[in-house]
Amino acid sequence: MAVRYANRMNSLKASEIREILKVTEKPEVISFAGGLPAPELFPVEEMREVASLVLAESGRQALQYATTEGFGPLRQKLADRMNRKLQTNVTADDILITSGSQQGLDFTGKVFLDEGDIVLCESPSYLGAINAFKAYGPKFVEVPTDDEGLISSELKEILEKVQPKCIYVIPDFQNPTGRSWTLKRRQEFMEIINHYEIPVIEDNPYGELNFEGEILPSLKSMDTKGLVIFLGTFSKIFCPGYRIGWVAASQEILEKYIMIKQSADLHTSSISQREIDKYLELYDIDENIAKIKEVYRKRRDLMLAEMEKEFPDNVKFTYPKGGLFTWVELPAHVDAREVLLKCVENNVAFVPGGSFYPNGGNENTFRLNYSNMQEDKIVEGIQRLGKILREVLQPLPQ
Amino acid sequence: MAVRYANRMNSLKASEIREILKVTEKPEVISFAGGLPAPELFPVEEMREVASLVLAESGRQALQYATTEGFGPLRQKLADRMNRKLQTNVTADDILITSGSQQGLDFTGKVFLDEGDIVLCESPSYLGAINAFKAYGPKFVEVPTDDEGLISSELKEILEKVQPKCIYVIPDFQNPTGRSWTLKRRQEFMEIINHYEIPVIEDNPYGELNFEGEILPSLKSMDTKGLVIFLGTFSKIFCPGYRIGWVAASQEILEKYIMIKQSADLHTSSISQREIDKYLELYDIDENIAKIKEVYRKRRDLMLAEMEKEFPDNVKFTYPKGGLFTWVELPAHVDAREVLLKCVENNVAFVPGGSFYPNGGNENTFRLNYSNMQEDKIVEGIQRLGKILREVLQPLPQ
Repeated sequence: MAVRYANRMNSLKASEIREILKVTEKPEVISFAGGLPAPELFPVEEMREVASLVLAESGRQALQYATTEGFGPLRQKLADRMNRKLQTNVTADDILITSGSQQGLDFTGKVFLDEGDIVLCESPSYLGAINAFKAYGPKFVEVPTDDEGLISSELKEILEKVQPKCIYVIPDFQNPTGRSWTLKRRQEFMEIINHYEIPVIEDNPYGELNFEGEILPSLKSMDTKGLVIFLGTFSKIFCPGYRIGWVAASQEILEKYIMIKQSADLHTSSISQREIDKYLELYDIDENIAKIKEVYRKRRDLMLAEMEKEFPDNVKFTYPKGGLFTWVELPAHVDAREVLLKCVENNVAFVPGGSFYPNGGNENTFRLNYSNMQEDKIVEGIQRLGKILREVLQPLPQ
Repeated sequence: MAVRYANRMNSLKASEIREILKVTEKPEVISFAGGLPAPELFPVEEMREVASLVLAESGRQALQYATTEGFGPLRQKLADRMNRKLQTNVTADDILITSGSQQGLDFTGKVFLDEGDIVLCESPSYLGAINAFKAYGPKFVEVPTDDEGLISSELKEILEKVQPKCIYVIPDFQNPTGRSWTLKRRQEFMEIINHYEIPVIEDNPYGELNFEGEILPSLKSMDTKGLVIFLGTFSKIFCPGYRIGWVAASQEILEKYIMIKQSADLHTSSISQREIDKYLELYDIDENIAKIKEVYRKRRDLMLAEMEKEFPDNVKFTYPKGGLFTWVELPAHVDAREVLLKCVENNVAFVPGGSFYPNGGNENTFRLNYSNMQEDKIVEGIQRLGKILREVLQPLPQ
């Protein structure tokens, strides 16, 4: 058979890391690899009640086709909540419900990117976004980052040389680094963006999971020109199983996303939307978020304390103030993929950092997740990992 | 602001018809426009029980991230059911769960089509498929059809001239025409396809809704070379609200779809998948399908009898043996869009046929749906429509 695929299929390869990480599904493996929330915090009983209510009150509508834009009352609640929590000024009409915020990323590629177009992103950036954009054949230009976020002077320099279609950023508790942008960096960023009029995709899955300090203003709240496309999701503040995310953008841009949504999957599950809407009506999601933050904060504290103790001195890592991840940098000559192979033999796992750089390199980095492992497993896992790192980095004299 | 979109956004225009049809949401309008199933047949009470059980038995897993391929037990049940009902020979590994079969259509475009590639489809064809493919910039070549299905000699002639990347067909109770392919046409089609080795997308949302006679063998059941990509869905045999569809294809092809799914939305709602799986375990979906067929058959009979009585003689229409639609052909000079405007004034609606032809033309056609209206409304609606058609086609002498 000589089936001919689209050219894009050549650039999308099944990830070797995914193959390695398949072993992490074994129960004896302590995995810091996934970006999974803690399932013991999911509001299972509440959702049983909610599911029953939604079907009793509006079963026929909930099981029928629905509008592409999403369930009206849920869009209204999301707009109100964003305005309250993130200091934005959006209406229900500015919101499109998506099947997880991953779908918002895919649509972004589809709306903006032709083959050869330039897309900017932080260096490193979320690998799911990189893969979503890759399907549309763009060139990636990586903007350097530091502990304060995306480096404004570097962005300026890049924008003097190239004309990107859009820029993708995660200002709060970034995936993979766990870092947040300072207020100053946010302000500088919006000034530059407004000057060059570049659409910004602000991906904000973790922003409400701040363990200390205030939530900083979202880029969307500073958006005076309708340039910021905000991606939100329930996956980390509630649970991922319903696959409910949203896009908030200016009317002109949102219309394009709605058109794409129509041909991509007609609409997101009407029953899932109504169930989440009912949950928001009956329960206080902020109480749920407070519980999540409490648990994750403890896990972060424990993981970082253990890393301090167990990791060799020439291993650097970030101190996230929220979110799900810390980011580790090994000495430049060490390949984290090789470390992972040793780790998997010892039933502990992480994600090597190379895949978070769309243009490659930086193989001496990796990402650790602390949200999905119980405390005793975190201690045990970091001890195993520390032992391996010490062996790799400080070999015993022969 | 000078935001620059991808070129594909130029070819995707918000449909004027969609705008006109927005008025059909008013309760006084009798709409034969949508392709909606009858909500009074949805198993609402059963799903209340199922939802509660799934959350009680496996709440944490149901609300967590899940694998891209889909929920294992559901994939197994789908493979078994396809083999039993459609005479195929597939395994759970050949199945990918999608967010409705619309997503399978979008992925088909993404997997196969580069700009300028040729895709073949029936003339006319499902407008949702046409729009999904359009986003990838192909050229459409329409293969003529008649009451027996896609015309084999026409397909042969086309394949001597062009090299399509794939061919999209709906052999059972087609949307929009309601026609089914004869067994002979299916056999001839597969011979031609096997000779030229063209991937076939067999879209089969209505195949099980046969009102009389046996279900004919699916193309997938005749597929000896792994060329047929089968798209299935629960939308018409159960309910659309969960957005659960599936792709069944050979391993080589399915791998491509899985890669695309990963970056498009990670996976389909895990809780929706588990709920449908549980329903299939506890209930006999075939009993539900039998009920649906009984109701739709009556509605079809009534609509067609009314059309015979009310429509002028120079209006032709199909006699579907199953599915949701009948297809109407007006004299060549009459524009169905103009008829629709008059209809909307009189609170009755349909979808003009032009949009079902990717290369345009055939504005003298329209599609009628009979599944979504109660019997008294069908009579009343066809009477209104008949009156307008008589006015348009047989104007009174001045």
